[in-house]
Amino acid sequence: MIFVMERFALKNEIEEVSERLKSLGFQVHLSQGVQRTIIGAIGEGIHENMDSFLVLPGVEKIVPIVQPFKLASREFKSESTVIDVNGSIIGDGSLQIIAGPCAVESREKYLEIASTVKDCGATMLRGGAFKPRTSPYSFQGLEQLGLEILAEARALTGLPVVTEIMDPRLIDTVAEYVDVLQVGARNMQNFFLLRELGRINKPIILKRGPSATIEEWIMAAEYIISSGNSQVILCERGIRSFEKYTRNTLDLSAVPLIKQLTHLPIIVDPSHGTGQWKLVEPMSLAAIGAGCDGLMIEVHQNPREALSDGPQSLTPENFAGLVTKVQQIQGILRHTQNED
Amino acid sequence: MIFVMERFALKNEIEEVSERLKSLGFQVHLSQGVQRTIIGAIGEGIHENMDSFLVLPGVEKIVPIVQPFKLASREFKSESTVIDVNGSIIGDGSLQIIAGPCAVESREKYLEIASTVKDCGATMLRGGAFKPRTSPYSFQGLEQLGLEILAEARALTGLPVVTEIMDPRLIDTVAEYVDVLQVGARNMQNFFLLRELGRINKPIILKRGPSATIEEWIMAAEYIISSGNSQVILCERGIRSFEKYTRNTLDLSAVPLIKQLTHLPIIVDPSHGTGQWKLVEPMSLAAIGAGCDGLMIEVHQNPREALSDGPQSLTPENFAGLVTKVQQIQGILRHTQNED
Amino acid sequence: MIFVMERFALKNEIEEVSERLKSLGFQVHLSQGVQRTIIGAIGEGIHENMDSFLVLPGVEKIVPIVQPFKLASREFKSESTVIDVNGSIIGDGSLQIIAGPCAVESREKYLEIASTVKDCGATMLRGGAFKPRTSPYSFQGLEQLGLEILAEARALTGLPVVTEIMDPRLIDTVAEYVDVLQVGARNMQNFFLLRELGRINKPIILKRGPSATIEEWIMAAEYIISSGNSQVILCERGIRSFEKYTRNTLDLSAVPLIKQLTHLPIIVDPSHGTGQWKLVEPMSLAAIGAGCDGLMIEVHQNPREALSDGPQSLTPENFAGLVTKVQQIQGILRHTQNED
Amino acid sequence: MIFVMERFALKNEIEEVSERLKSLGFQVHLSQGVQRTIIGAIGEGIHENMDSFLVLPGVEKIVPIVQPFKLASREFKSESTVIDVNGSIIGDGSLQIIAGPCAVESREKYLEIASTVKDCGATMLRGGAFKPRTSPYSFQGLEQLGLEILAEARALTGLPVVTEIMDPRLIDTVAEYVDVLQVGARNMQNFFLLRELGRINKPIILKRGPSATIEEWIMAAEYIISSGNSQVILCERGIRSFEKYTRNTLDLSAVPLIKQLTHLPIIVDPSHGTGQWKLVEPMSLAAIGAGCDGLMIEVHQNPREALSDGPQSLTPENFAGLVTKVQQIQGILRHTQNED
Repeated sequence: MIFVMERFALKNEIEEVSERLKSLGFQVHLSQGVQRTIIGAIGEGIHENMDSFLVLPGVEKIVPIVQPFKLASREFKSESTVIDVNGSIIGDGSLQIIAGPCAVESREKYLEIASTVKDCGATMLRGGAFKPRTSPYSFQGLEQLGLEILAEARALTGLPVVTEIMDPRLIDTVAEYVDVLQVGARNMQNFFLLRELGRINKPIILKRGPSATIEEWIMAAEYIISSGNSQVILCERGIRSFEKYTRNTLDLSAVPLIKQLTHLPIIVDPSHGTGQWKLVEPMSLAAIGAGCDGLMIEVHQNPREALSDGPQSLTPENFAGLVTKVQQIQGILRHTQNED
Repeated sequence: MIFVMERFALKNEIEEVSERLKSLGFQVHLSQGVQRTIIGAIGEGIHENMDSFLVLPGVEKIVPIVQPFKLASREFKSESTVIDVNGSIIGDGSLQIIAGPCAVESREKYLEIASTVKDCGATMLRGGAFKPRTSPYSFQGLEQLGLEILAEARALTGLPVVTEIMDPRLIDTVAEYVDVLQVGARNMQNFFLLRELGRINKPIILKRGPSATIEEWIMAAEYIISSGNSQVILCERGIRSFEKYTRNTLDLSAVPLIKQLTHLPIIVDPSHGTGQWKLVEPMSLAAIGAGCDGLMIEVHQNPREALSDGPQSLTPENFAGLVTKVQQIQGILRHTQNED
Repeated sequence: MIFVMERFALKNEIEEVSERLKSLGFQVHLSQGVQRTIIGAIGEGIHENMDSFLVLPGVEKIVPIVQPFKLASREFKSESTVIDVNGSIIGDGSLQIIAGPCAVESREKYLEIASTVKDCGATMLRGGAFKPRTSPYSFQGLEQLGLEILAEARALTGLPVVTEIMDPRLIDTVAEYVDVLQVGARNMQNFFLLRELGRINKPIILKRGPSATIEEWIMAAEYIISSGNSQVILCERGIRSFEKYTRNTLDLSAVPLIKQLTHLPIIVDPSHGTGQWKLVEPMSLAAIGAGCDGLMIEVHQNPREALSDGPQSLTPENFAGLVTKVQQIQGILRHTQNED
Repeated sequence: MIFVMERFALKNEIEEVSERLKSLGFQVHLSQGVQRTIIGAIGEGIHENMDSFLVLPGVEKIVPIVQPFKLASREFKSESTVIDVNGSIIGDGSLQIIAGPCAVESREKYLEIASTVKDCGATMLRGGAFKPRTSPYSFQGLEQLGLEILAEARALTGLPVVTEIMDPRLIDTVAEYVDVLQVGARNMQNFFLLRELGRINKPIILKRGPSATIEEWIMAAEYIISSGNSQVILCERGIRSFEKYTRNTLDLSAVPLIKQLTHLPIIVDPSHGTGQWKLVEPMSLAAIGAGCDGLMIEVHQNPREALSDGPQSLTPENFAGLVTKVQQIQGILRHTQNED
């Protein structure tokens, strides 16, 4: 932590900052420049609430030296985290393909699409039982019945199942039925929910909030990990920008950045990330180029009848074509990496 | 709802859209242009899930004609909503000043600052018992004890008290102790929480999410109102932008826009909206110029010792000065409006 | 300038950075922490191109200590710059009201509206002769003829005139006809143009780019000042955000920030800043509350016939009402400030 | 163009809009709904300045039906534009790799790196002679001398050369020395410059402005094309977001979108798009996955000595590795496409 003092900071102002840092357990290192005095806080002091120093007279700014996240950082744990979801491995250099409709709409339709995406090459299933919708007048999901259908699809296909959790009161129930619990973008900073998810023993997919910085996103993962659950999979799903042609702006640079800053696996959701099914294939191939550990793709047997997210859902035919291309590229990339 | 067909849309594609609209209960109005055919859906059909039409062949785009919010709209209810919080009236043209520290830090300190801000002219008290913090390692609030202190301050000063609610499981508890429940920016789209808040009989302050559009914000209010609670107060607290000098970018144009689009009162939080105490006074005066119904301002007896948000907290002296100026401007503005 | 080394930076990496800094004329200050070594560059070395240090092995990040702008900074010149535009004074605590149509559309119409806005209380005139338009198919201005009409309006009303300059080849011509040259938002980083404007002896209004940070905006002013012209007036006109109800998001916190960081005057353009005439009055009052030195407002005798920006133009009647309110608020604010 | 009237629009208000549209040459189509009347303007009327209708009483909003760009649109010209830059073909499904340092720093260094990148597989050269820099105190380029060096490198390597043009007065001079003129991000809406570039017979690389929407970007291309030059290559180079870890946020969804909306080729600049050399390789592979026609990559023989953009420049070794991987992926993708 470095404290930059104002140009004409007084001697006693510099001393006040120094003394206060010492009282918090830091060693203090003064650096007297021509234009500014800089105070370095060194060692194992109490870091919390450093911002309050900004109120002291003579303090111009505070510069953090160390990242605010610890347990999630590559610095803390240099080897990549590999998560085994009932045999589907995320983070080992392979590519997981999580597919299914936005929402579970009926038992019959879900079981059908589950089998279909499995046949096309999906390695995990997705489907919402509880749906967060911008409008209170939109379809909100089948709830408990949806969970039961997901469990049935899981038994039928043998594939692990992912579903979204929104309410901390439902964690235990949901965890009974599915393999991976997903925190949606809008709940990325629902800290109560994150802490509760730290107490269970299931992998968590943590979607990036639409306006979250990468640092805030990692801090949200840190909430889960520091509460006891280190099986966190990050999911880039697009950020909000001024662009109107797409629903969100998919930030693929997040993929190599997350791999640099953390040891966690990262997957990409090009369906929500673009909002247009025609963009899903090129952005899936792009995501693999960027180095992601998996894709999450919305597939519906009949997108025009989908109760939500139809415009961004692939038909089974398009999904099958996508999987073929994805696997070819992934083959090349893995081969190239192994040669390095 | 208008459906713009692609330039070379086929006759049977146009028919398919038309037929489907009719089956949903709409009347259909065709408009054949030189470059495009446009299909208008008229009347009281089933509006839900119109996006799915985007998947039909030949459909280029869908243009909503009517706003998605209803109960919150000025069109639905033309007179402004006025909310009485135990005698402090919000929305009648007067100005409420809600003040207090970011978090309740101790009984002694909170009771002291509560009395102080009352003496300076505050008309309501604020203070967090449960604190949403970006880092799991930061102070998270006094929780239950904080609520008890808030209730004591309320009894002591006679002023109504506002506090944040994050967890749906705690609504009844929190509602027992305070007069207004606040939904924080990060929970603006926590739909479970919003729905539960629609079931109680207390005013709700709904903060704007840092990247929420005004339409999404109003839709969040619609969740509360449509669940049964129409006492919603909107609070502008800054949006996320690329600017680095301020914590957020306070969007004051939201004030006249909200008054145009909805019948709900709107207050402004210049403390979070800027993150710097030096900007709180000019932005408070600006907010009044824009026509807000209230201000929410962080005040701490000793900002340099604050456990959170010290840099954006005013001292009691600065707060007293602000209240004086605010009241003068408000006097002029009300006088001018009455003359209109 | 502070250099934060990576956690496990080697001794020779630290030495390389140090030696290189010394060779650029800096003194070097080492600070060995538990987790990081920090290197401070002190004194009058060659600051240019410090980013290249980021490529040296072991360097994690570089933290600038001093702001990149000099001549524009309040630190360099503590008293506020006051600019006299033929008797209209900007920056002395008074409020200038610059008004007129977006574009000069015809001699007759311009002379009429010029007289009208003067009668309503405008203290300067605006009007575009060269119009930057998003579409090549839109009206691009009367060009030379527009300049002549502006000069005639200036003679007629006695008010100083502002117009936009886009092409460096036209600076001398434009400067002959008008009192203030305006750099539009889209040209804020047209560095060739800025440098040329530094060579003339006329005040420059420098509009903020729609996605410019405040630092970049001040750096653009620095280009003009460092080329020889210190008469720079900054103009906030809204930034780009994700919001769809407004054309731009007016960032009024820029007003007190600019006054804190620089000695330059700042005016606000609520017409472009919102894009809706109904929002112009509340945002004008807000801008004054924030402490601006002037307003730039689009007025058209018949907005529905305007060749550009009709939706954001006030009628003369609405403009007259705005001026009255603005002057009342300004009276109170100045009075309050003088008492401080 | 569709005009949505307000809920309680009067009959004469609807008539006024209709009459005005007819006077502009449109046919009018009325659609009377339950909640709104909608007026469609059909046929070949005068489209300019439609916004002025927003000022008419009773008009709620105007919805454009047809895109504002024409000559650049895929609708206008369905086959893709292929540009031949002295034998390097852009837009035919092959991949051009444009490489070189940010700025031409000296004759010796430039000729050396030009040969090196050619040997590594670059198909075109880049290098700035005139540099737009945020700070007036940074290196601004070798100017005329830089152009001469570029021409020499061109002769030496036989590769076409790209350089940035900022000042309309220099177009002829620059066009004498290089094969492709580049419009930088900050000048994307410098309309005078764009129009002048429409008058020459050289390909233009048009970089996307850091906060430009895709529509505005295409409109900037439309300026060049409508002035007579249809050889426009778009270049995605990152947009501004709130993220701090990267210099810009590379928006790769722009690649398939541009291909859908226009017939123009599009290349990607991952160097500016990320600002970090470590991200250049993954984002290059991602860009190819997204379907771009070329890459523009900064390479410097010694990034730590670069006078600008060192942190985002690759070493020749890293560049060579990148080219190898890029070619492998491109091979697969082309093969896959040909099979389609």
